[in-house]
Amino acid sequence: MKISEFGGEAAIINLIREKFGTAEQGDLTLGIGDDAALIRSGDKFVVVTTDLLIENTHFRMDLIDPYQLGWKSIAVNLSDIAAMGGTPTYSFVSIGLPDMEVEIIESIFDGMRDVSDTFGSSLAGGDTVASEAGIVINVTQLGSVEADRVARRDGAKPGDVILVTNTIGDSRAGLELLLKFGLEQARRASESCVVHHLQPEPRIAEARAAVSTGKVHSMMDLSDGLASDLQKLCCASGVGARVMAGAVPVSKDTHIAAARLDLDAVRLAVEGGEDYELLLTCSTKSAIAVARAISTTGSSARVIGEIVEGDGVVLAMQNGSEETIGGSWEHF
Amino acid sequence: MKISEFGGEAAIINLIREKFGTAEQGDLTLGIGDDAALIRSGDKFVVVTTDLLIENTHFRMDLIDPYQLGWKSIAVNLSDIAAMGGTPTYSFVSIGLPDMEVEIIESIFDGMRDVSDTFGSSLAGGDTVASEAGIVINVTQLGSVEADRVARRDGAKPGDVILVTNTIGDSRAGLELLLKFGLEQARRASESCVVHHLQPEPRIAEARAAVSTGKVHSMMDLSDGLASDLQKLCCASGVGARVMAGAVPVSKDTHIAAARLDLDAVRLAVEGGEDYELLLTCSTKSAIAVARAISTTGSSARVIGEIVEGDGVVLAMQNGSEETIGGSWEHF
Repeated sequence: MKISEFGGEAAIINLIREKFGTAEQGDLTLGIGDDAALIRSGDKFVVVTTDLLIENTHFRMDLIDPYQLGWKSIAVNLSDIAAMGGTPTYSFVSIGLPDMEVEIIESIFDGMRDVSDTFGSSLAGGDTVASEAGIVINVTQLGSVEADRVARRDGAKPGDVILVTNTIGDSRAGLELLLKFGLEQARRASESCVVHHLQPEPRIAEARAAVSTGKVHSMMDLSDGLASDLQKLCCASGVGARVMAGAVPVSKDTHIAAARLDLDAVRLAVEGGEDYELLLTCSTKSAIAVARAISTTGSSARVIGEIVEGDGVVLAMQNGSEETIGGSWEHF
Repeated sequence: MKISEFGGEAAIINLIREKFGTAEQGDLTLGIGDDAALIRSGDKFVVVTTDLLIENTHFRMDLIDPYQLGWKSIAVNLSDIAAMGGTPTYSFVSIGLPDMEVEIIESIFDGMRDVSDTFGSSLAGGDTVASEAGIVINVTQLGSVEADRVARRDGAKPGDVILVTNTIGDSRAGLELLLKFGLEQARRASESCVVHHLQPEPRIAEARAAVSTGKVHSMMDLSDGLASDLQKLCCASGVGARVMAGAVPVSKDTHIAAARLDLDAVRLAVEGGEDYELLLTCSTKSAIAVARAISTTGSSARVIGEIVEGDGVVLAMQNGSEETIGGSWEHF
């Protein structure tokens, strides 16, 4: 049976986790299934995450600058470290390269270095190999988190409020502009949305501020889109969620881009993908403290809904109707 | 300028290390340039290594069983942990998959699990993604090593003897058989050489036994072939080496395969590649103790030459002639 008949990427990930993943034991406190693994090391945890990007599957060189490709390939991993409440330490970069211009490779690594410098990580190792399959980049990112600052997906409780940082949908709007108009014209249409897509900012400081309150019940980063990611958080926590469409933070840029694309801005935000904003839950009475802590970093945090008993994720529209949301970025 | 004009894979690795690599500082005790990085963690080090394998560049599915592909992709990383004197802990597997048979994926992970179980590692995380570029596997392997057991490339001293474990050249002979005859016929010609190539055994116990003597000056694993790897060890240590061709341990299987292939067995062993045996140096007077320690694991270790002042690696032939060896596996 082929992957596409078997249930796609999600089904394969479940198969690997159930059949081959390690049970949490010994120093391994958290294995497959969250944004990153946690390995006990004294009174802290080593946080480990890894992401594989393949040319023409996950990126196209005509739609991203080499510098931004380098930036993004590290940034998405830093975002996973943030999701656990951690701070990044060291990156290990495996890169497969066709016989290409050395200047382009330098630009990729310039982007990697700049995002690492900005967010406190360093390049400590890797593997550089030839590739007959286009550019392949795998980043394994290590981080560190104190035992009392760890944030996980599985701690959401009925009655919790759901918060997201800043605005969502910008990246998806940027992607749609890129696919429709190409790099240069997309940039002219919305530099902001395109930059959100190509050069995301991991929310390290925001996550640290949030977990420092001691009030976060669950957290993850938004990589696959609010609908899909909230479903995962709910599934891990054994709860359901209710999101108010009118409360989802959508930027003016996304509204303008959506109009240009003849798409619905709220739907871009909800189904989105690659936002790399934080999704977190806490008790109603802690919401102000958590949002205030996040606001000290220059970012905002907004309540978009609540955790409920059950297992569905429902979007409550402003006209009073409700719909079940979910689904995932499915490449197969 | 293209990579091929710039000096190939080795030149790109140097560029990345010099321009973008992190200086050893803080907890990072050893960065880019050895078999693995070392990060201080209390009185131990976390050992980190990563390897990227791309279908049709580094392996061909008609020349390797899926089970062996899984085994090998983890084994080559475990070998890097061994090279540092460490014990493996956790593996993180990124895998890019075309829309392929799920059974094949399970076989790949069966091989990964079996080699992990055999050598004391566990699968703790990863990334599973679609690929339009064939199968892509990146393994990041973590390990642990006590501060007084660390082995590095840069400790060889003039007067040291050079040892290798078991026999070398078997894997290269296996590869040549595979390329010439295909999987089934190559297996019939030399099951042993083919298995050495497709399902190598990382020398974890051997390396631990060696470093436990406290007498190892330098160590690495043989992945690119004796000539190339010994040159790297010499370069890191600022020394030269003299290898006696007659002392290089070549198996009967490799001799037979070489005859069948009309190739020179010693040359297969010296230029080899993917042996995943250990290359180490120690003082002359410690050689017996180190070899004896390794022999307790069921493997053998043999003196093949000596470290000298200078910077060349010389192969002394049995007819009295000498030649400078070196070079690398160059894919570009």
